[in-house]
Amino acid sequence: MEEKVLQAIQDEYPDDFAWCYGCGRLNEEGHHFRTGWNGEQTVTIYRPEQNHLALPGFVYGGIVASLIDCHGTGSAALALHRKNGHEAGDGVEPPRFVTASLNVNFLKPTPHGVPLKAIGTVQEIHPKKFKVETEVFANDILCARGEVVAVVMPSTFLKNG
Amino acid sequence: MEEKVLQAIQDEYPDDFAWCYGCGRLNEEGHHFRTGWNGEQTVTIYRPEQNHLALPGFVYGGIVASLIDCHGTGSAALALHRKNGHEAGDGVEPPRFVTASLNVNFLKPTPHGVPLKAIGTVQEIHPKKFKVETEVFANDILCARGEVVAVVMPSTFLKNG
Repeated sequence: MEEKVLQAIQDEYPDDFAWCYGCGRLNEEGHHFRTGWNGEQTVTIYRPEQNHLALPGFVYGGIVASLIDCHGTGSAALALHRKNGHEAGDGVEPPRFVTASLNVNFLKPTPHGVPLKAIGTVQEIHPKKFKVETEVFANDILCARGEVVAVVMPSTFLKNG
Repeated sequence: MEEKVLQAIQDEYPDDFAWCYGCGRLNEEGHHFRTGWNGEQTVTIYRPEQNHLALPGFVYGGIVASLIDCHGTGSAALALHRKNGHEAGDGVEPPRFVTASLNVNFLKPTPHGVPLKAIGTVQEIHPKKFKVETEVFANDILCARGEVVAVVMPSTFLKNG
């Protein structure tokens, strides 16, 4: 049986913020990344689609980068939500984050056809800024290592759109 | 009339290497990024699809990262091809590159609904390793800055797949 994240932070975002192509539950064609706690670390599990190739047999790097990106903002949201006394699923609206920077080191070609598991370690570097170090595994092979700096979304973000 | 890259390096890859979800011409559902020279710099132009959202009105960062990724490997291929005395379109098979690292700084929310233009500056840092600094513009607004380190694809890559 494939592993699944049970309580994902993305399930808790209000509808207006659920359209992300990476992790929005309302974006029908998106990846639907879902991020939850795994002990003191965070986890996102994703099985790339048939066409998400770099070369036949290997996953496209842009998909790995996308996974690290949304895993980063989701992990930061989980961490600040917990700091505020809440957990995904308790009915309280979580904070949302945007990505300030995304760094990915591709360590090995990522095999296609298996679920990818992103495991994150979150660190608060400022009350409104979190750093998330992520390792992406395919079949327990460490394929990529990434870092996201995520900042709390400005409250004016949607109004400026 | 929308700008278009005329001689793209991705048009020259052999069929076995044309399946990339980002820039493979044979991947029907992919982004079809196409990269060519623009003077001494390189350019890739891409209009995100309807669903490529971060929030309504803004482009998903994973798409911007994907654009920078394939623009980087394509730019490196253009540069090494030129160093070897060739240009896209002259019928000689170009070198292919893989991404070693990808860094993206998101400077401003990227507006959705307009073509994005990635402009790259290529630097050889080793005979088999090139660094590509890229700026991504939407309507002449600089939205993201990225760096890709691209390395010549090992000849064993497909055989190991």
